[in-house]
Amino acid sequence: MTRAFSLRLTEAVLTKRCHLIVGLDPRPALLPRDIAAKWRDELGNTLEAAAKATLEFNKGIIDALADIIPAVKPQLACYEQLGVPGMETLAATIEYANAQGLLVIADGKRNDIGSTAESYADAYLGETVLGKRSLRAFAADALTVNPYLGRDSLAPMIERCVSFGHGIFVLVKTSNPGSKELQDIDCGGRKVYEIVGEMCHELGLPHLDERSYAPIGAVVGATYPDEAARLRSLMPHNYFLVPGFGAQGGKPSDVVPCFNPDGLGAVVNSAREVIFAYQKHGGDYPDAARKVAIVSRDAINQALAEVKNLAW
Amino acid sequence: MTRAFSLRLTEAVLTKRCHLIVGLDPRPALLPRDIAAKWRDELGNTLEAAAKATLEFNKGIIDALADIIPAVKPQLACYEQLGVPGMETLAATIEYANAQGLLVIADGKRNDIGSTAESYADAYLGETVLGKRSLRAFAADALTVNPYLGRDSLAPMIERCVSFGHGIFVLVKTSNPGSKELQDIDCGGRKVYEIVGEMCHELGLPHLDERSYAPIGAVVGATYPDEAARLRSLMPHNYFLVPGFGAQGGKPSDVVPCFNPDGLGAVVNSAREVIFAYQKHGGDYPDAARKVAIVSRDAINQALAEVKNLAW
Repeated sequence: MTRAFSLRLTEAVLTKRCHLIVGLDPRPALLPRDIAAKWRDELGNTLEAAAKATLEFNKGIIDALADIIPAVKPQLACYEQLGVPGMETLAATIEYANAQGLLVIADGKRNDIGSTAESYADAYLGETVLGKRSLRAFAADALTVNPYLGRDSLAPMIERCVSFGHGIFVLVKTSNPGSKELQDIDCGGRKVYEIVGEMCHELGLPHLDERSYAPIGAVVGATYPDEAARLRSLMPHNYFLVPGFGAQGGKPSDVVPCFNPDGLGAVVNSAREVIFAYQKHGGDYPDAARKVAIVSRDAINQALAEVKNLAW
Repeated sequence: MTRAFSLRLTEAVLTKRCHLIVGLDPRPALLPRDIAAKWRDELGNTLEAAAKATLEFNKGIIDALADIIPAVKPQLACYEQLGVPGMETLAATIEYANAQGLLVIADGKRNDIGSTAESYADAYLGETVLGKRSLRAFAADALTVNPYLGRDSLAPMIERCVSFGHGIFVLVKTSNPGSKELQDIDCGGRKVYEIVGEMCHELGLPHLDERSYAPIGAVVGATYPDEAARLRSLMPHNYFLVPGFGAQGGKPSDVVPCFNPDGLGAVVNSAREVIFAYQKHGGDYPDAARKVAIVSRDAINQALAEVKNLAW
């Protein structure tokens, strides 16, 4: 029996007492000099070298964090930027994170229609069928997806989630200033993001796990706590993936409205502030990342305890 | 001096007298048996074998069509579905199509915010900076993008388009039934897709080429001709990329509203119906693809001549 992604996520959060997940968003210019230099010496100043350095870096981060956080979130654009070698590093990073007991949320913000939506679903959530054989292309546990194409574009994703015990996070209210442009448009008393949130709520209802969470989550930015509170009430069964914490300005208290009264229902992403912590705080990069991750984890736990009385 | 993508597209359309572009959306199960078997014999029933077979197939299609169509549109999901080997085939397909004189529109429907939007822009439209060196990750001429994240998410894309002579096509009104869900929401007299169309119009105005076309195009489905006509009037300077023709049900007369009075301003995509024509019509797959492409090209030209008096 396949276990639901939402249940696996909840169990990891409860076991590790941690709502923080870490974004693996490597940037060539920010990698530690010794790792970059080592691979540049071997492979020249190439995409291959940058991709190999990134993989080594990611493994160090994963080793440093695997026992404290429930999931990592590789940002696909950072790997696509390194071309084919970057995609190799993405696949290897996913595999390594899985092997270390971390859930992997592929942050691709993918979507398309019809048979193409099926292809994205197969690529990240299901399996690619080759005659009598089925193979995983990128073995993620969950994928972020874009709702602009409508409900039919999400159907193959949801189907794969249910079949394989995977999840999607639909962009609902994003953390950037420009999210106002389309997402906040008023449509006769309801905002576009509320309509999208209600759609995710409806789509999730037939597929709730034993703790009443759906395989369909929502991306809800920490930078808009009022909107997050509104969405939390509209969609109690959908996990929130919360970007905007840390480097983008979201404070621990800002993420509190994203949680349900059960103390669950949200994971908070931090990327640059954790993985490149060594640049600000010095020390070895894995140690620096671990320290900042622990501080962030504790700050979120404390805010939940203080504001919502949600101590562990 | 970098030449604008819109200008290069217009010149290719005029030279070849063809508004049809062809989607390179390969599916493992639909590849010719001999090509699939050859690579399966060599590499087993693997993603590698499927990816190699796909590349050989694509090259055959490109050779058969390079002198008659202005551009190809690889559907990125189909390559991601084949994992890392699929991305290798994508990169090699783009390179091969470019070498045969075809423009390449990467159909990835990508987008994200902030530095991640920069990464997507670098990956497909600009260059990845590695110290003193800049390299192309995937050497496309244009990329399809999703507008849900708002104007700030498009800014890095547009910046790369202007710097490198590349283009984007923003999803405005897509060809699927579910496009009604979000795109057709009424917001006080205007639909969401009209608001997005007007945004593309505004964003393009500062960057018009010498024929008054912008580097920012729009995806507008052939399956909604009334909406296309409305959008054509709202955004006269934006190229339309028109899916939904052929296999999805759009007829030649349906695409006519997508064109401007100058007889330009739209390219019409056909994928399965062309590249897998051999399955329906028999014969060698390149010959079958070429025949169907010519029939489609002529049908569009004729519809333009009859309905809008836009003969070449």
